[in-house]
Amino acid sequence: MNNNIKATLLFSCPDRPGLVSKISQFIFEIGGNILDLVEHVEIDEKFFSIRIAWEMDGGSISQSDLNNKFKTIADEFNADWKINFKDKKKRAAIFVSKYDHCLQEILWRHKLSEYDIDIPLIISNHPDLSSLAASYSISFHVFEITKENKSAQENKELQLLRENDIHTIVMARYMQILSPVIIDEFPNQIINIHHSFLPAFIGGNPYKQAFERGVKIIGATSHYATLDLDEGPIIEQDIIRISHKDSIEDLKRKGRDLERLVLARALHYHFEDRILVRGKKTIIFE
Amino acid sequence: MNNNIKATLLFSCPDRPGLVSKISQFIFEIGGNILDLVEHVEIDEKFFSIRIAWEMDGGSISQSDLNNKFKTIADEFNADWKINFKDKKKRAAIFVSKYDHCLQEILWRHKLSEYDIDIPLIISNHPDLSSLAASYSISFHVFEITKENKSAQENKELQLLRENDIHTIVMARYMQILSPVIIDEFPNQIINIHHSFLPAFIGGNPYKQAFERGVKIIGATSHYATLDLDEGPIIEQDIIRISHKDSIEDLKRKGRDLERLVLARALHYHFEDRILVRGKKTIIFE
Amino acid sequence: MNNNIKATLLFSCPDRPGLVSKISQFIFEIGGNILDLVEHVEIDEKFFSIRIAWEMDGGSISQSDLNNKFKTIADEFNADWKINFKDKKKRAAIFVSKYDHCLQEILWRHKLSEYDIDIPLIISNHPDLSSLAASYSISFHVFEITKENKSAQENKELQLLRENDIHTIVMARYMQILSPVIIDEFPNQIINIHHSFLPAFIGGNPYKQAFERGVKIIGATSHYATLDLDEGPIIEQDIIRISHKDSIEDLKRKGRDLERLVLARALHYHFEDRILVRGKKTIIFE
Amino acid sequence: MNNNIKATLLFSCPDRPGLVSKISQFIFEIGGNILDLVEHVEIDEKFFSIRIAWEMDGGSISQSDLNNKFKTIADEFNADWKINFKDKKKRAAIFVSKYDHCLQEILWRHKLSEYDIDIPLIISNHPDLSSLAASYSISFHVFEITKENKSAQENKELQLLRENDIHTIVMARYMQILSPVIIDEFPNQIINIHHSFLPAFIGGNPYKQAFERGVKIIGATSHYATLDLDEGPIIEQDIIRISHKDSIEDLKRKGRDLERLVLARALHYHFEDRILVRGKKTIIFE
Repeated sequence: MNNNIKATLLFSCPDRPGLVSKISQFIFEIGGNILDLVEHVEIDEKFFSIRIAWEMDGGSISQSDLNNKFKTIADEFNADWKINFKDKKKRAAIFVSKYDHCLQEILWRHKLSEYDIDIPLIISNHPDLSSLAASYSISFHVFEITKENKSAQENKELQLLRENDIHTIVMARYMQILSPVIIDEFPNQIINIHHSFLPAFIGGNPYKQAFERGVKIIGATSHYATLDLDEGPIIEQDIIRISHKDSIEDLKRKGRDLERLVLARALHYHFEDRILVRGKKTIIFE
Repeated sequence: MNNNIKATLLFSCPDRPGLVSKISQFIFEIGGNILDLVEHVEIDEKFFSIRIAWEMDGGSISQSDLNNKFKTIADEFNADWKINFKDKKKRAAIFVSKYDHCLQEILWRHKLSEYDIDIPLIISNHPDLSSLAASYSISFHVFEITKENKSAQENKELQLLRENDIHTIVMARYMQILSPVIIDEFPNQIINIHHSFLPAFIGGNPYKQAFERGVKIIGATSHYATLDLDEGPIIEQDIIRISHKDSIEDLKRKGRDLERLVLARALHYHFEDRILVRGKKTIIFE
Repeated sequence: MNNNIKATLLFSCPDRPGLVSKISQFIFEIGGNILDLVEHVEIDEKFFSIRIAWEMDGGSISQSDLNNKFKTIADEFNADWKINFKDKKKRAAIFVSKYDHCLQEILWRHKLSEYDIDIPLIISNHPDLSSLAASYSISFHVFEITKENKSAQENKELQLLRENDIHTIVMARYMQILSPVIIDEFPNQIINIHHSFLPAFIGGNPYKQAFERGVKIIGATSHYATLDLDEGPIIEQDIIRISHKDSIEDLKRKGRDLERLVLARALHYHFEDRILVRGKKTIIFE
Repeated sequence: MNNNIKATLLFSCPDRPGLVSKISQFIFEIGGNILDLVEHVEIDEKFFSIRIAWEMDGGSISQSDLNNKFKTIADEFNADWKINFKDKKKRAAIFVSKYDHCLQEILWRHKLSEYDIDIPLIISNHPDLSSLAASYSISFHVFEITKENKSAQENKELQLLRENDIHTIVMARYMQILSPVIIDEFPNQIINIHHSFLPAFIGGNPYKQAFERGVKIIGATSHYATLDLDEGPIIEQDIIRISHKDSIEDLKRKGRDLERLVLARALHYHFEDRILVRGKKTIIFE
C-alpha cells in the first residue's frame, strides 16, 4: 500500500494509437504525477487495458469534477473505466459461518493497516464467531437462515448493507449461497474463497473430492461471486503439496492456511483497485 | 539413485501388529541390510503399506528363490507385494508424436544416468523426431496411425514391445489414445503426461480451456494410463503462475517446462520402485 | 496429528544389519502396533536414523519401564535415542517482544488443537501483547531487559520456566538474545524464527540487507537456538518472491506471512517428535 | 515473445510530473502504438523507471533517426535510456566448460525460437561439448586456459567476439573467471549462473556448503558478471526443497534443473530488453 497514491484509474477499450498519451496527458493537466502504471494490449483482440495510480494535491480537483472531465475522453474511446479516490475508504462487510480462519486473517491484517478500508460490520448465520468480532470491536449481526426464511433474512441483510454504505462483501467461508437479490446489487464487489483449485472440484466438500481422486496438490481459489456458483471471475489461486499420509482432516488443516492467504491476496488486489473484470476473466495489475 | 541398493520391496495388506518385525526379520535373515524404509498405516481403513530398499551381497540369493521364500510370509498376510532386483534394468519404450520437449528431457537424463534403465526403442506416429532419437543412438520406429489401420498398427507395436522385452511405456506427449490391447498388457506400467492440473481441464486442448476460464495457475499431471482417459492414478503434479499478459502460446511455452519436469519426476518414482498403486490412487514413497 | 499414536521413538547409531528388525521386534513385544516409520542410512558415514510412531494399549507398560527395557537394546548399538509418550503433553513457553504475528499464529493454531501441547505462559520484554495473551487466557509475564538487569531478569525467567515445568521455548520474534544460562538448560528445545533465508543475511535487519542486495526472493528460517547466533540447526525454511516495486515495508509485510508459517511448521515437527538433531544439522522425519 | 513488437525503450531518471505523457506522446508522433508499458516511481528516492514496447510500420523511421530525436527529450530529463529495435537480432556467445545442462537448455530453447537471437559461436576451455554444439550446427571454439596462457587466450577470445559482433555473453556453467579485459567490454551484457541462492554460499562448491550447513532449500542465481565475483546485479533466482536423504550428488542433480531454468528465465528477460540495471540491483519489467 503506497500512501502517496491519491487516485487510481482502471480503463479498457478497443486498442488504437495514442491512448496512453491522451490519458497520461489528462492526468498531468489535472496536476497528477503518475507513480505506477501498467498497460497491455492483447494483440489478437486488440484489447487495451491500463491501470494508473497517481499522487495529486488534495484540493486540486474533486472526484466528481474529475469524473466529468475524464468522461469526455473515455466516451471518445468507447471505454469501460472507473476512477477511485483514495480519500474515501471502501467499506466492507464480512460474511462468515462457523470457521474462523479467514475472518481472523482479515481482521488481523486490517488491524495492521494492510488494507485501507473500513469494516463496519460482520454478518453470520451462526453466533459462533461473535466473540472474535468483539475482540476487534466490530459489530456482529446474526441472521439464521432456513429454507423458509432465507428470502426474508437476505432482505434484512441487504437493508443493513445499504444503511452501512457497504461497497464490498467478503464471503470468508460463508456456507450459504447468496441469492440474486444480493449478488445483483454488488456486481464484482462480492469476493468468495473456494477451497479447491477451480475448476477442479466444483461444489461441495472439495477436500473429500480431492482425497478420493488422489491428487498430489490441493488448492484454493478466490473469485468474484456470480449467479453461477464457483464460475465467477477468478482473482487469485494457490496450491500446497499433500501426500498419501494426509487424511481428509490433514487436507482441511493444510487447506486452511491456503484459503486465508489466497483470500487475503485477492482482497489486497481488490481494495487497491488492481482488478479489471473482463467477461469471465480478471486482469490483475500487479 | 543409490547404487548400494540391490533390491526393493513394495508391500501392502490389512494392518496388524508385527508386520514390520516379520518383514525386516526376513530381510535380515537373507543377508540384507535395510538402507531406506517408509511405512505407514492409514488408520481409517487399517491399510498397511511399506517400501523397503536394502543392500545385499550379490550371490547370496537369486531373485526367484527370494520370491519363493517371501511368498510364504506374504500369503499369511494376504498381501499385494513385489520385489524388484536392481541388477536387472527395467526396459522402457518411449511413445512420441511431434513435440520434442519430453523426449529430449528423458533422453538427456538417461544419458546422465539419472534413470537406471535401458531404452531400446522409441515409437512414433510421425517421423519428425527421428533425428533426435538418432543423436542418442536409439532406434526409432514409425507407425503412422489412421482410423482404418490403428488396430493393425498397434498389434505390430505390441509385437515390437514384446520382442524387446519392454517393461514400461512412457507416453511423452504421444497424441494418440492407446487401445485396450496395449493398456491391458501393461497394467500400471504406462506413464502419461497430461498438460493440465487434473481433474481440471480433462480432454483436448487444456491450455485453451485454461486460457478461456481465466485461471491464474496452470498445471501438468503425470499418471498411469488406464482405459478411462485422464482418469488413471496420479503420480505427480506441479503448477506455474500465469498472468493476463500470457497468450495461449505463452501457456504452451510455460507448460512445456512443467510437462517435462513433472514427467521426469514421475519416471524417477516409477523406475526406483517408489510407487504403490491403490485403486485410483498412488502411494509415493519419497 | 494422529491421535492413535501413543509413543514415538527417535533413534540413531552407526549402521549395521538387523537394526530395524531388533527395534520393531521390541515394539511388537511390548504390545505396540507401528503406525508410521521412516528409516534411512546415510551411506557415506554409515549413519542409521529412524523414527517410529506406534499405538499401544494405555496400561500395557509405563514410560519408565519402557525406557529401562529399551536401554538394553540401545546400549548394545551405542545409540542416541529418546522415547516420547503422547499422554504427557509438552509444555511450551512463548517469548515475544512487540510483533504479534507469530504469537497470534501459534495461539490460534493451539486453540484449533493443531499442536498437542500446553502453553502455560508467555514471557515478554514489553507489555504490548498482554491483551492478545489475555484473549487466549494465557498468563503474560513482562521482564523488561536492560544491559544492567539482563542477567538478573533472565534468572527470574528461568525460575518461572522451571516452576512451570517448561519443555520448549518458542522465540516468536523475541528481540533479545538469550544468555547461555537459558540456552544451556534447553538444548534443542528453543526454537527461533529468523527473518531471512539463512545463511544469507545473518544478523540485524535482514529485510534491509535483502532490499539493498537486490535479491528476487526473500526467506525465513526456523532453527534451534544455540550459543552461536543464527548458526543453530535449521528446522524449516521457505521463501516468497519480491519485485523492484517492493519497498522495505513491503518486504516486512510479505515476510510476516512467511515467518509465521515457517515457525508454525517447525513447531509442528518439533511437537510431533519428528526432529533428530545431528551436529549442526537436523533430520526431519516427515 | 510478441512478434508485433518492433521497438522497446528502457528509461530511468529523477521523477517529475509529465514524464509518461512526454514519452508516450513522442512514440505516438513517430507512428508507434504502445503494446506493453510498465512504469514505476520509487517514492523514497523519487526514481522514475519505465519500459515501453511498441509496434510501428517498419519504414517509418530508422533507428538512428529515432535515437537522435529521442535524445532531445532524454537530455531534458537527465535520463539513462536505451531504445532497442527488434529487427536487429542480438548476437550471443555461450561460454561453457564440461557440464552440458545449461548449454543444452539454451540451444533447445533457441531452436524452438523462444529467444529472438543469433548464436554464432560457443567458446569453451574444454573440447567435451563439441558434439552437442555440432548437433545444433553452431561453431565451437576451444581455448584451453592455464595460469600462464590465460591472458593471451582471453585476448584471442575477445578478438573472436568482436569479429562476430557479439552483444551478449552467456556463462553457461563456464568454470573460469573472466578477466577485466572481457568484463569491461561487455557491461551488463555478461550473464552468469551461480549454483546457490546468493548471497548465501558465495564462491566454490556451493552444493557442498549447503549440504554441510544443513539448509532445507537450495537455490540458483543468475546475475550480470562484474569484477566482484558473485556480486553482480541479480536477475533471477529460484529454489528447490531438499531433505536429509539427499546426498551432495542429489543436490547437484536437483540443482541442475534449477540452474538451467533460472538461467533460461534470466536470458528471456535480457533478450527481451526487460532489465534495467540500477547500481547493484536490477529492475525486471515483467
